[in-house]
Amino acid sequence: MAKDDDTAFDQAGFDEALRRRARMVEAVLRQVLEQRPLAGEIARPQRLIAAMQHGVLAGGKRLRPFLVMESAALFSADGEAAARVAAALECVHCYSLIHDDLPAMDDDDLRRGQPTVHKAYDEATAILAGDALLTLAFDIVADEATQLAAERRAALVLALARAAGAGGMAGGQMLDLQAADAPPDEAGIIRLQAMKTGALIRFACEAGAIVAGAPAAERERLAEFGSAIGLAFQLADDLLDLTADAGTMGKATGKDAAAGKATLAALHGEDWARRQLAGLVAQARALLEPYGAHAAMLADAASFVAARNK
Amino acid sequence: MAKDDDTAFDQAGFDEALRRRARMVEAVLRQVLEQRPLAGEIARPQRLIAAMQHGVLAGGKRLRPFLVMESAALFSADGEAAARVAAALECVHCYSLIHDDLPAMDDDDLRRGQPTVHKAYDEATAILAGDALLTLAFDIVADEATQLAAERRAALVLALARAAGAGGMAGGQMLDLQAADAPPDEAGIIRLQAMKTGALIRFACEAGAIVAGAPAAERERLAEFGSAIGLAFQLADDLLDLTADAGTMGKATGKDAAAGKATLAALHGEDWARRQLAGLVAQARALLEPYGAHAAMLADAASFVAARNK
Repeated sequence: MAKDDDTAFDQAGFDEALRRRARMVEAVLRQVLEQRPLAGEIARPQRLIAAMQHGVLAGGKRLRPFLVMESAALFSADGEAAARVAAALECVHCYSLIHDDLPAMDDDDLRRGQPTVHKAYDEATAILAGDALLTLAFDIVADEATQLAAERRAALVLALARAAGAGGMAGGQMLDLQAADAPPDEAGIIRLQAMKTGALIRFACEAGAIVAGAPAAERERLAEFGSAIGLAFQLADDLLDLTADAGTMGKATGKDAAAGKATLAALHGEDWARRQLAGLVAQARALLEPYGAHAAMLADAASFVAARNK
Repeated sequence: MAKDDDTAFDQAGFDEALRRRARMVEAVLRQVLEQRPLAGEIARPQRLIAAMQHGVLAGGKRLRPFLVMESAALFSADGEAAARVAAALECVHCYSLIHDDLPAMDDDDLRRGQPTVHKAYDEATAILAGDALLTLAFDIVADEATQLAAERRAALVLALARAAGAGGMAGGQMLDLQAADAPPDEAGIIRLQAMKTGALIRFACEAGAIVAGAPAAERERLAEFGSAIGLAFQLADDLLDLTADAGTMGKATGKDAAAGKATLAALHGEDWARRQLAGLVAQARALLEPYGAHAAMLADAASFVAARNK
């Protein structure tokens, strides 16, 4: 892919930073997903915990956790607290994948080249594993072990719930299901994507500011950055779906188009989408200018989501 | 049913109190389930909100919310804060019913004489409505609108998550699914029931103490009361399943027995179960003795769950 100034960045250095953050978050995820019950729990059925682990620990770029941790680092927040919030967000992301993959939803058998949870276990177990992961996310954030003042833990629970619920991700999934019967117009597509994929990415960037107790204006700036890269993320995904072959994806491609799903890239064409993508990256980077070199890694995340090819 | 001293209580007075509390909680539920998005939300799809309302506002005794509100009142806690926590708990209870009714789980078409959510809408919508209700529960508790110190909101989120997650209700549902293939022994049945139905009832009673900021010893006493009536609730349910006819239940009965599900009542017989039930009510009432007449309504709740016939 041709790169202009705004999308050029040190991909290898970024990938290494992404992997480093991923290892920290995965350590938290493994710890909260041990079979030993937490205080106040009765017992954790082995099959349910195994299905949750399958859904959460089977890889992935851990982009959302990375955004939480980098935005927290921007404000010099405690890294361990940020890693726990990042792990909670990943639980929400993975629960949504488990439920989206169900036969009644997108009916996918493979995810990252592995059997989806309902294929590796069964449908009922997959429903429960998703439910339990969503619940665990709020557990992780609210727990005193997160080492944040209660005010910040409560604010994080609220912001995460708003991003994930009926007016955010879950609502976006509902709109996506309805889009199969009644293709949305451009405004409808934008709303659907802002909810289905945008809300959690926006939360990821905002969360770091909440963890750090940053002023409201900073929190809003990071949230706007999150919205911009959320749009870029979706546009890159749409472009990939328009152009990539199945081999590099690990899942069926051209699927959105085959299902008649409207995307902005399909609506306006590849050239428009690439220009739009470059504009979003520039806009996202500009939002971080006040932070100078401290925000270099976060700024590169904008280029990363635009340039990703898998 | 023959009643001894411990189960005798003013059923009509209790029913009226139950209805009064239900109206308060339903007012909160209607308000949080309006279609207008909350601050930080993008939009609430009408179909999803309607499905959530169908699952939450279609009746029910509202026993769990009653327990939250009465236990809060015992410590003179703010009634509006308690009503919001009660509404959150009811969202969790109803999400679990929606998911339990799914074809991949218990596959029930009727709930309280009405079509279940996946029958009234569709399976995908029911999955999402359950997900969104679970998410909403944590939103309600964490929100500043609950008018509690952040420390109490965070403690409530955590206790609710522990009661509902892999080591509580969701884990209990997993054990219940597995019980169909490998009938549990007595210890297994007790654990299954403590998780599947007991954990939320225990939380309901404990929650009032948390809302009120009661000392840890009081919180533990109320939690123990909750455990006792949770056991009584389940035993009454098992007895009902052994003895009642389909007409009074509004759902298929004898179903547990038909599915080969082991219950304590089935294991030890009806006489044992009735004696056990009376013992649990006495034990629950005894835990409330220190509070005297202030706890009369809560004590009657113990008799109510033991005497219920629908």
